[in-house]
Amino acid sequence: MTILYDDPDEFADDQLAGFLALYGDRLRGVPGGVVAHRTSGASPQVAVVIGGGSGHYPAFSGTVGPGFATGAVVGNIFTSPSAAQAYSVAKAAHQGRGVVFSFGNYAGDIINFGIAAERLRKEGIDARIVVVTDDIASSDDAAKRRGIAGDFPVFKAMGAAAAEGMSLDEVERVGNACNDATRTLGVAFSGCTMPGADEPLFSVPDGHLGLGLGIHGEPGIRDIPLMRAADLASLLVEQVLANRPEGASTRVAPILNGLGTTKYEELFLLWRHVASILADNGVTTIEPEVGELVTSLDMGGVSLTLQWLDDELERLWRADAYTPAYRKAAAPVAAFVVPSPDEVAVGIDQTPPPATDAATRMADVVRIALSAIHDLLKHEEHALGRIDAVAGDGDHGRGMLKGIGAAVARVGSVDERAGGAWLLSRAGQAWAEYAGGTSGVLWGAALESLAESLTDDRQDYTATDVVHGVDAFAEAIVDLGRASEGDKTMLDALLPFARALRERVEQGMSLSDAWREAATVAVASAAATADLRPRVGRARPLAEKSIGTPDAGATSMGMIVTVVGNVLAGVGGHDAGTPVRVDD
Amino acid sequence: MTILYDDPDEFADDQLAGFLALYGDRLRGVPGGVVAHRTSGASPQVAVVIGGGSGHYPAFSGTVGPGFATGAVVGNIFTSPSAAQAYSVAKAAHQGRGVVFSFGNYAGDIINFGIAAERLRKEGIDARIVVVTDDIASSDDAAKRRGIAGDFPVFKAMGAAAAEGMSLDEVERVGNACNDATRTLGVAFSGCTMPGADEPLFSVPDGHLGLGLGIHGEPGIRDIPLMRAADLASLLVEQVLANRPEGASTRVAPILNGLGTTKYEELFLLWRHVASILADNGVTTIEPEVGELVTSLDMGGVSLTLQWLDDELERLWRADAYTPAYRKAAAPVAAFVVPSPDEVAVGIDQTPPPATDAATRMADVVRIALSAIHDLLKHEEHALGRIDAVAGDGDHGRGMLKGIGAAVARVGSVDERAGGAWLLSRAGQAWAEYAGGTSGVLWGAALESLAESLTDDRQDYTATDVVHGVDAFAEAIVDLGRASEGDKTMLDALLPFARALRERVEQGMSLSDAWREAATVAVASAAATADLRPRVGRARPLAEKSIGTPDAGATSMGMIVTVVGNVLAGVGGHDAGTPVRVDD
Repeated sequence: MTILYDDPDEFADDQLAGFLALYGDRLRGVPGGVVAHRTSGASPQVAVVIGGGSGHYPAFSGTVGPGFATGAVVGNIFTSPSAAQAYSVAKAAHQGRGVVFSFGNYAGDIINFGIAAERLRKEGIDARIVVVTDDIASSDDAAKRRGIAGDFPVFKAMGAAAAEGMSLDEVERVGNACNDATRTLGVAFSGCTMPGADEPLFSVPDGHLGLGLGIHGEPGIRDIPLMRAADLASLLVEQVLANRPEGASTRVAPILNGLGTTKYEELFLLWRHVASILADNGVTTIEPEVGELVTSLDMGGVSLTLQWLDDELERLWRADAYTPAYRKAAAPVAAFVVPSPDEVAVGIDQTPPPATDAATRMADVVRIALSAIHDLLKHEEHALGRIDAVAGDGDHGRGMLKGIGAAVARVGSVDERAGGAWLLSRAGQAWAEYAGGTSGVLWGAALESLAESLTDDRQDYTATDVVHGVDAFAEAIVDLGRASEGDKTMLDALLPFARALRERVEQGMSLSDAWREAATVAVASAAATADLRPRVGRARPLAEKSIGTPDAGATSMGMIVTVVGNVLAGVGGHDAGTPVRVDD
Repeated sequence: MTILYDDPDEFADDQLAGFLALYGDRLRGVPGGVVAHRTSGASPQVAVVIGGGSGHYPAFSGTVGPGFATGAVVGNIFTSPSAAQAYSVAKAAHQGRGVVFSFGNYAGDIINFGIAAERLRKEGIDARIVVVTDDIASSDDAAKRRGIAGDFPVFKAMGAAAAEGMSLDEVERVGNACNDATRTLGVAFSGCTMPGADEPLFSVPDGHLGLGLGIHGEPGIRDIPLMRAADLASLLVEQVLANRPEGASTRVAPILNGLGTTKYEELFLLWRHVASILADNGVTTIEPEVGELVTSLDMGGVSLTLQWLDDELERLWRADAYTPAYRKAAAPVAAFVVPSPDEVAVGIDQTPPPATDAATRMADVVRIALSAIHDLLKHEEHALGRIDAVAGDGDHGRGMLKGIGAAVARVGSVDERAGGAWLLSRAGQAWAEYAGGTSGVLWGAALESLAESLTDDRQDYTATDVVHGVDAFAEAIVDLGRASEGDKTMLDALLPFARALRERVEQGMSLSDAWREAATVAVASAAATADLRPRVGRARPLAEKSIGTPDAGATSMGMIVTVVGNVLAGVGGHDAGTPVRVDD
């Protein structure tokens, strides 16, 4: 949806006025568009004047500057500029060495730039036309194809050629050679909305993508169901490679272009596949560009452009440029020093300290307990997610499962002679590393504190040692989380549990009995958090919504201490007597 | 909608892998994030390690490089990275001069970066923390505010300071000074969708904007109805200025930031107002940035950040940087030569040639006819738009009205002694310039051809002269439009009209009678285009949809020649006998 405007009819002019207010230090407005300021001391060069309708930024005004276009003609949204506009911009851009007009192959642009070129010629200014025809979806006849993201490399090749001082004939030749070497295929996920319109200009059926759909909604090849990024990458690469020009080299300059609402992270994710499929096909990629280079307002979609390079086109593609939207400099990149792998490695000490027999026996209990918690959280992931979603982001179950999964995997790789404390510290590090978020780091740090309290050098481990260990576990969470009991966090289950455990052990109860009784206290306390109002953390802003639902972190804490109690009592993770469901 | 992914749970890692595949020549992946390659020969510098959740590109990995951050810690989507990740990236980024961690003020980040800093200090690496708190909507207490787009200037200030060789103390001081001098207010138009989710993470009521809504959907101030860009600019500037720091200077570095689906053209349009309101308030803007600098997947919205500058912050803001997403170089801009105004002017010859009395009388008819066409198209704009919308973009009425409006205005400014041909040529130029699109340029060129045929040097103008003029008018459209009769274009009304006019004039009929009879032929022929299938131009791809609806260009042609016939018959634009409605 296009939201920001004053008068929708004036959108194109108003956005241009803002653009000029922003970049007046490097280009100027002229009737019909913009022209780059000349660089002090630079020789006159061929004027490369690009253009088309508005709504495709950075096409066209965003790529005016040294090493790229000399001027841009700016039409109304998705509408060809007039011949008078093209003429006016060309006159202002002309430096005495002739003009090349370049634009995508659309009927209105052909006519208007054509008239402008004739008018310039009548005045004695040599004017040429290079039409971009890269969209393989738009016609089997290469000359009839529309111009889409291939505008970018064709304009850049000519801009770099002009900056090198090439003649009008040469700049025109380079532009046509680059166009002949360039192919694009695009897909659309959603249409765009014109300023002031209530409905999109065009649309794509839900759950589908429009293969080859044009950037103004021109018909494509067909609508097909949405697919994984890996499959889309295959489709795009295979189709574009199948349309490679005759006699093409194996070196390409790729552009993976986002159309508007398809964002950078998605483009990077897709690029990983595109790069690897191109490599599998024996193609070498040269300075790929991934980003928004030819957009269409808020359209969703992506296109892949490949420009097959010869030595000249590669030199021009690599050349420096400095424009509002596109800045490239070889020097900073050439100056980088790529470090050797041993400089990169961040060591994690994987050698456990010597452990007593008692510590090794404790390690067995730790392994069983972690495994039982893992089983538990596989089952409860979605239930915990639903509780968390009432007043949070719903990721608690997922985060906990990732944390315990990482902990179990890390412990599985540890030397079998390691003690329980070493295992708990490794488990804590892995949990914090993979769970993400606040609860992940709290669980990780708490397990590390528990490990520090227990140590692997004792001849035996008493119930009191475990009470001290649980206290250390809880203290880590209090210190790091900066919360108190009653704030509606996991502490509202953990602290009552720790108190109940201490009381019963001090009364002389066995560890397993004391733990299981304390666990029932934890479960009840977790349930009671339903009445509380959150005072810290993410859930705070949604305090009202949270009332009536227990805290997800307290709930998972109650579940986990219950399962650990079962392990300590020798019933493994299985227990029919508690409300906690566990894996069979 | 986030569309491109393989496994939604692996989105953050997958996008990072693609990012590293793309920019491996300038930075490297380490466990937990990315670190910039060092520049050959550069002295060791303080490591500026930034970070946070994924989904905010170019924050955070996109601003790693010379003059900006040394490393970035990359968490899961919208989730704090772990302490282990932050520690790992910092170890890899450290150059022996200490580490500054910097990130937005969120609980998870505070905890995780805090633990990492402690761990570094235990190992003898001095580590500091600079928290960004720029979001004035999130709290009245400056220290409790969230960090949003203010991340960008704070990170840049520290990156530039480190590049200058400043000490750890100084880099930390600069970071805190920049944060103290920076304020942001944002608005949201729509929420963003997490990979794999069916529903947005949060939303904004239809027709409203969320004032101060956080970039993860954290609560803002209130929802208010959408407003014009000018009003939104006032709101943002006034609120941010009202929160200016004590003792603030009058020089600011502004950032107008798009959150994802709010596109460049919209940002430029808004910037025009922001720049002018800031100037009205006596504020000088220094190298403003307008674009996507801290995004939130496909969220719609915009934020305004102002950093109040002292000499040191201004120097750091202006400093060069070369990162994947942000590249700045002072040299190319400093080398530009701003031309004088007379170099910019593109002259249009406004002096008419001498006209005969007959040509001056013809001028009166031309003025009346153009005015009558103007009245007609004001009435028929929407009807023509509806016809065009069936299989086109619906802008025909609007374009025609813009063309005739410009023609009438241009003619109104012409010397009263000008002849009719001169008027027609000025009208044609204005029409082509302002109407936009293909039909605009065709109408403009046709009027110019008519003018060339008639000339202003005759002693009288016969009906045959007019027939020749109409032929010239039609030929221009045939030549430029590359269409033929039967292609469902304006020619399907114009060519039958021209033939009927010629026949009747050759038979000796008076011009006005011949014209009016020919006009009825044109109207009938236009109506008959309903049965045709378009073969050229924009409507071609929608050929099937078009059948049953007449061509909009043929329809307007029929209307216009009817009105001109009325003028020639001396009944002005008014006529009850035709189906054409005209203004009263």
